Amino acid sequence: MTEARRGRPGSRSLARRRGRRPGSSDTRGRILAEAREAFGEHGYDGATIRGIAASAEVDPALVHHYFGSKQQLFVVAMEFPVDLSAAIPRLVAGPPGLLGERLVAYVLEQWEAPTMRPLLLGLLRSASSDPVAAAMMRRYLAEGPILALAAATDRPNASLRATLAGSQLVGLALARHVVGVEPLASAPPDLLARVIGPTIQRYLTGDLAEGEAMQPQDPGVP
Amino acid sequence: MTEARRGRPGSRSLARRRGRRPGSSDTRGRILAEAREAFGEHGYDGATIRGIAASAEVDPALVHHYFGSKQQLFVVAMEFPVDLSAAIPRLVAGPPGLLGERLVAYVLEQWEAPTMRPLLLGLLRSASSDPVAAAMMRRYLAEGPILALAAATDRPNASLRATLAGSQLVGLALARHVVGVEPLASAPPDLLARVIGPTIQRYLTGDLAEGEAMQPQDPGVP
Repeated sequence: MTEARRGRPGSRSLARRRGRRPGSSDTRGRILAEAREAFGEHGYDGATIRGIAASAEVDPALVHHYFGSKQQLFVVAMEFPVDLSAAIPRLVAGPPGLLGERLVAYVLEQWEAPTMRPLLLGLLRSASSDPVAAAMMRRYLAEGPILALAAATDRPNASLRATLAGSQLVGLALARHVVGVEPLASAPPDLLARVIGPTIQRYLTGDLAEGEAMQPQDPGVP
Repeated sequence: MTEARRGRPGSRSLARRRGRRPGSSDTRGRILAEAREAFGEHGYDGATIRGIAASAEVDPALVHHYFGSKQQLFVVAMEFPVDLSAAIPRLVAGPPGLLGERLVAYVLEQWEAPTMRPLLLGLLRSASSDPVAAAMMRRYLAEGPILALAAATDRPNASLRATLAGSQLVGLALARHVVGVEPLASAPPDLLARVIGPTIQRYLTGDLAEGEAMQPQDPGVP
């Protein structure tokens, strides 16, 4: 999957053959679907309005008409099609000791979904070079579903807990789906859920040792 | 620090005022130093030979003469100036139960160093869009010092352990230094070493539950 990048004809035409997303048969939706593919493959800097328009078989002026600038198109295209916060009650409802494992299993499943995959790649490939994409990722990490989950566990320092969990998940996404480092990239999702789940569990619900009190001047060991 | 991106004049001139790195007073070294700054600020796609040549006050042809292509310049510029593997004996030598904490403290310290910072940012900003940078990051994650550390602990599945630890560390670098999500971005290094250390400790030395045996078909919980 790591090789399927930078516009290799094979991967592109494969993506095309998968057909349109449901509900994107209108022109606006077709442009959005192509924008997601383009941002996912090339990142913000690499994708162009001209290229997206060509893939959607419309005039570039129509893309500007519907969405304004490339930046505005990016923001709309990268909106997740799934309301991730809707999953929170279900994630919280299971055995409390396996919350982390359920969250990792859930995000791994989401990342594999054909509608989510270009969004994940687009956001990861753009966040490190484009300020708008970076702001979107900051928002997902700092105010997104993980914070809601951290808050639901009713422990102090929910923001720190959420961003710690987010750092592990975003690193997993980068190492597995963008950089593609083995054996992590090919590890089965259920194995990763069991191995990484306890990390998320501890960040969200555990005693963070001295970290709990946010008193870095305290010496001592956990 | 997140705002100091995409060529804001302030951050650029600040970087310039810091002066040349030791040992880079020759032309080749001056080009390399400017290349590191440029890749760190703009990533691989955003940096140009022309811009690097201008900052180093040389002709672009001289950059090509010394380094060949932009890709070749990137590979040389992103070579770490510190031999990270030299730190391994010292990291392994301390109390075994705090190996993870020592590693996190060590990498956080490295990332803050003026000579390392542009390399970290350059690699992170480029790895998601450029295949050469991605290959370099894969190598650091899969075959780098973390693997040596994982191997030194003499536990099975050293490669999986190393890439798991790498995924947490690369996610921390991205969230803290590139995306800049709070409160993680401003958290004191010693707090993060105590909070994230046990994660690395478990990945490198702990029982990875069913993950240990790499038998994803096994049901059961950790």
